[in-house]
Amino acid sequence: MSRRTISHETGAIYEFTPELEPIATVESGAQLTVETRDSLDGAVQSESDVIESVPKDVNAATGPIEVEGAEPGDVLRVDIDDIRLTEDRGRVISIEGFGLLDGHEGIEAPRSRITPVEGDATLSIEGIDADVPVEPLVGTIGVATESESHTTLVPHDHGGNLDTTDLCAGNSVYFPVFQAGAMLAMGDCKAAMADGEMCGTGAEIGTAIDVTVEVLSDPEIELERPLIETPEAWKPVASADALEAACELATRDAIELLAAEHEVDTTDAYLFASLVGGLEISQVVDPLVTVRNAVPKAHLSAPF
Amino acid sequence: MSRRTISHETGAIYEFTPELEPIATVESGAQLTVETRDSLDGAVQSESDVIESVPKDVNAATGPIEVEGAEPGDVLRVDIDDIRLTEDRGRVISIEGFGLLDGHEGIEAPRSRITPVEGDATLSIEGIDADVPVEPLVGTIGVATESESHTTLVPHDHGGNLDTTDLCAGNSVYFPVFQAGAMLAMGDCKAAMADGEMCGTGAEIGTAIDVTVEVLSDPEIELERPLIETPEAWKPVASADALEAACELATRDAIELLAAEHEVDTTDAYLFASLVGGLEISQVVDPLVTVRNAVPKAHLSAPF
Repeated sequence: MSRRTISHETGAIYEFTPELEPIATVESGAQLTVETRDSLDGAVQSESDVIESVPKDVNAATGPIEVEGAEPGDVLRVDIDDIRLTEDRGRVISIEGFGLLDGHEGIEAPRSRITPVEGDATLSIEGIDADVPVEPLVGTIGVATESESHTTLVPHDHGGNLDTTDLCAGNSVYFPVFQAGAMLAMGDCKAAMADGEMCGTGAEIGTAIDVTVEVLSDPEIELERPLIETPEAWKPVASADALEAACELATRDAIELLAAEHEVDTTDAYLFASLVGGLEISQVVDPLVTVRNAVPKAHLSAPF
Repeated sequence: MSRRTISHETGAIYEFTPELEPIATVESGAQLTVETRDSLDGAVQSESDVIESVPKDVNAATGPIEVEGAEPGDVLRVDIDDIRLTEDRGRVISIEGFGLLDGHEGIEAPRSRITPVEGDATLSIEGIDADVPVEPLVGTIGVATESESHTTLVPHDHGGNLDTTDLCAGNSVYFPVFQAGAMLAMGDCKAAMADGEMCGTGAEIGTAIDVTVEVLSDPEIELERPLIETPEAWKPVASADALEAACELATRDAIELLAAEHEVDTTDAYLFASLVGGLEISQVVDPLVTVRNAVPKAHLSAPF
C-alpha cells in the first residue's frame, strides 16, 4: 500500500474543537505522509527575525484527517513511522512573556537563533560551538475535543501541544476518540528538544511525518488522555495547570493500568508504581504543563 | 588502601544543621563503607506493621563524617562505588498525610507491603506477581548546612532527602561545603524506586555503601546545590516547594555551566539547554520536591 500524502497546503488548524471539518478522509490502517510547517509558519529565517509576543496563530496542525469508522469511545492508534526534516535549518527562540525563565535576570527576549542542520545527524546553533544530535519529534498532535476548545498552543486530554520527546519515530500514541472520525491533526515538529522545552521552543522545523492510523473499536479500557507506547514502556500522558496536578493524573492512569493487569487494588498498584519506571517531564511552558509516567513493559502488557 | 567501615551503630543523625559533631574523621581520598539502616529503623517487618503518621525520626543518616581539609567554599566529591543490600527484604508503604495521591479515592493508608529480595537481582512485592529489578540508590545524603536546619525528611541545598534514582553505584555527587569538615552523612537507601517516589517510599532497605570522598579546594565554579555526575551527563539537582520552582533552579544551574563552557551569554545558554538533555523528576513527596536538569557530557566537560 502506498502512502497518501496530506499536504499542509491542503489545510491546517490552529484550534482543536469538537466540530472540525476534515481535509481528508482515510481508512483505518491507512499509511500517510503528513507534511508540516514549522511552528512559526516560516516567520524566523534569520537572527533578525524575532518574535515579540506569542502569535495568535502558532503551531499549525496539518489536518484534520477523518479516520473512517472512528466513533466516540474508541481509541485512535497513531504509529509514528518516520519524521523527515524538510528544511535545512530550524530556529530556537525566546519570546517575552513565555518560557520557564521568562523575566529572570540575564534572560533576554525576544531572541532568535538559527539551527542549521548538517546532513541528517546533527544540528548546530549559530554562535555556539556544539553538535546537537537530530532527534525529530512531533510537538502538536491530537484529535477533535469532547466539548471544549483549545488552541494548538495548549495540551490537554485530546493531545494538542504535548511537546514530548517520546513523540518520535518508532513510537506510537493512542488518543481517546471524542468525535466521529477522530479528526487527527499534527504539526509543530522539532529537530531536537530537551525534556522540559524550557525556553518555550525546540529547534522548530518543517517535516514530513510518516504515520499509520488505526481505529481500535470497543477498547477494553476507557482512555481519558493520550497514552504513548515506546519499545520499553507504556506512558500515560497528562497536562494540567501545574506539574504536581499533571503528575497526579499521569500516576492515576498508570496505577489503573497496573491494577487491571495484576489484579490488585488501587493502593497496591500505587505502591508497585512507586518502585518501577516513574514520572518524566514533557514540557513546563505551554501554558498548561505536561508529564508522563513510564510503566516498563516488563510489568504491563498492551492494554488494548 | 583498605576501606574503613562507618557503622550506623557508631552514630546517625535525623537533622542536618550547621553544627554537627563528627562520629569519624577521614582524609580526603578516603575509601569508606558506610552502613545504613532502613529509613523506618526496622519498624516494618511484616504487613501488619503499619506506620500511622510520618515518624518524628525518619531517614537515619549514618555520620556525620568529617573530611579533613574541607573548608567552606570547597566542594565535596562523593563517588558512589557500590551499594550492597544488607537485608533480604525491604518494605514499601503508604502513610496517611504523605505521598502524591494522599487522600485520593481508592488510596488506602496506612498500608505496608514487604518486598523480598531474590538473589541480588530482583525483588518481589508480596501479593503481586512481578519481578522488579534491584537497582539500589541512596535516598538521603548531604552535608552540614550553611545556617538553617533541615530534618532528614527534607531535601535542600545541602542535599538531604534527595530521593534521586541517579544516586546509585557508578555515579558521583558533588556538594557545596558549608562548614569545616563538610560533615557528610547518608542513609535511607532503597532497593528500587520509581522517578517521583509517588507513594512516599521506594523499597526501603538496609545497606552497606562503598564511597570515596574527596575535597576539591578552591573550585573554579561556586556550587550552590548538589550536582550529580553520571557516565553520560552532569545533572544539577534542585529542591523547592513546587516542581516549577525546582525546575527554574536546576535550569539556571545548567545554563550557568553551559554559558561558562561555551563562552556564550545566559540567554544563548538557555536556548542551547532547551535542545539537549533536560528536566527530570527526582521526587514529588518529601515535602520539598526535587528535580534535576541533565546536560549531556558531549556538551559539558567537568566543571571542577
